[in-house]
Amino acid sequence: MIQRPLILVCNDDGVFAPGIKALTEVMLQLGDVIVVAPDAPQSGMGHAVTISDTIKIANMSKEVDYLKYSCSGTPVDCVKIAVNKLAPRRPDLVVSGINHGSNSSINVIYSGTMSAAVEGAVMGIPSIGFSLCDYAYDADFNPAKPFIKQIAENVLATGLPKGVCLNVNIPHTNQIKGIKVGRQAVAYWDEELDERRDPRGGTYFWLTGVFRIPDTGNDTDEAALASDYISVVPTQYDLTAYDHLSALKERLEYVGETQKG
Amino acid sequence: MIQRPLILVCNDDGVFAPGIKALTEVMLQLGDVIVVAPDAPQSGMGHAVTISDTIKIANMSKEVDYLKYSCSGTPVDCVKIAVNKLAPRRPDLVVSGINHGSNSSINVIYSGTMSAAVEGAVMGIPSIGFSLCDYAYDADFNPAKPFIKQIAENVLATGLPKGVCLNVNIPHTNQIKGIKVGRQAVAYWDEELDERRDPRGGTYFWLTGVFRIPDTGNDTDEAALASDYISVVPTQYDLTAYDHLSALKERLEYVGETQKG
Repeated sequence: MIQRPLILVCNDDGVFAPGIKALTEVMLQLGDVIVVAPDAPQSGMGHAVTISDTIKIANMSKEVDYLKYSCSGTPVDCVKIAVNKLAPRRPDLVVSGINHGSNSSINVIYSGTMSAAVEGAVMGIPSIGFSLCDYAYDADFNPAKPFIKQIAENVLATGLPKGVCLNVNIPHTNQIKGIKVGRQAVAYWDEELDERRDPRGGTYFWLTGVFRIPDTGNDTDEAALASDYISVVPTQYDLTAYDHLSALKERLEYVGETQKG
Repeated sequence: MIQRPLILVCNDDGVFAPGIKALTEVMLQLGDVIVVAPDAPQSGMGHAVTISDTIKIANMSKEVDYLKYSCSGTPVDCVKIAVNKLAPRRPDLVVSGINHGSNSSINVIYSGTMSAAVEGAVMGIPSIGFSLCDYAYDADFNPAKPFIKQIAENVLATGLPKGVCLNVNIPHTNQIKGIKVGRQAVAYWDEELDERRDPRGGTYFWLTGVFRIPDTGNDTDEAALASDYISVVPTQYDLTAYDHLSALKERLEYVGETQKG
């Protein structure tokens, strides 16, 4: 008998979020599932790891018919602990999400959802982050489900290149037109600090801002989403800017020479 | 009169760490300085941002002869707030560190130090993260200082390519041999979970592990450091794996077609 694939499901919105419930439902159609997710929302955690504090784990598997754990750590902690400690065998696929809100373009670097997927890739496991461009708690994940299933099936069957995971963003529409593979758009948050007074007269701030997309290319994730397509960006964790290595060698390696003299 | 450059100094070890003091001392030789750093250590915070909580700022400038603020947020928050709120003009350079400990190879994605530098680059400001391969609180930053000064001078004079910052790691030695520009080595943490019992009998974990470097290339940051050279890796935040775009198009864009039919 061929063993069913083992799929690790993680997220950053927390183990109780509707998005991870929707993702788990889809993955149960494709293999055995283990859910390991933060015990509370962790949006915006980026690739944080818990190294200065302890981590606690609660086994919630009795409530469901698959393995399910909540973890006091970050999304990246969840993947590390799942693979090294909780999973009965090495997972064949790591999926993260479905995030409540977009992780397209520059948001990939702030995203706990994507960091969990990146961590899976660092461990050598094919990994996918899924995000829906709807921040609502009661967002409708149903239109996305058939696409998520087919993308995950494709990756289970064919794997992914070494060092690469997928950043999948799903438009907020009932009429998804298809899938487009593209590059991360050039975009940024135009930040503002919302200054307020606390009841004792102290000053505090909320970080807020407007999302700007100067990139007008039609080959980007943002362009795909704006046309009601699902965007898929192959995402790597080798951050080396190879195009600039030789110019920087010329500029900087002499510094050492003068220092030595 | 030509205005001196304004240099923003940040870190992830917190505003009271010796490493940021050393970096500030060097930068005061090169320009006007504003320090904005976390009010407590934030190692391993990655590119976390504070979006679900308030942020508090304390002005510590009266203690010193430059601008100095502590911030309750993450390293990335510090850069955002410094540039958008606290700096008297747009900084000409963002420097982060000196981190107590290495941020070479895969550590770049977990590093709050480097995330602060990346955030500066996202904002379009030339940015450098400096890390010393010595985790000790009382690490000796003096051998690194002349190199840090020359690298920062070079970047102030010539800038950096758009979308690129520098990840500078400094070997733990009194005999620094020079500077090597190279790529991020392929490496990973071989994690273990150290399981313990709390006084009430509950189980908790410490995340720990051994750092593995399967990459034997002599053009990597790890190779430079192992030979007592400072390593400089040009680091980008466009995570698109361009080499794999076309193959993934063939594999995945059909999915949408079949879904539509």
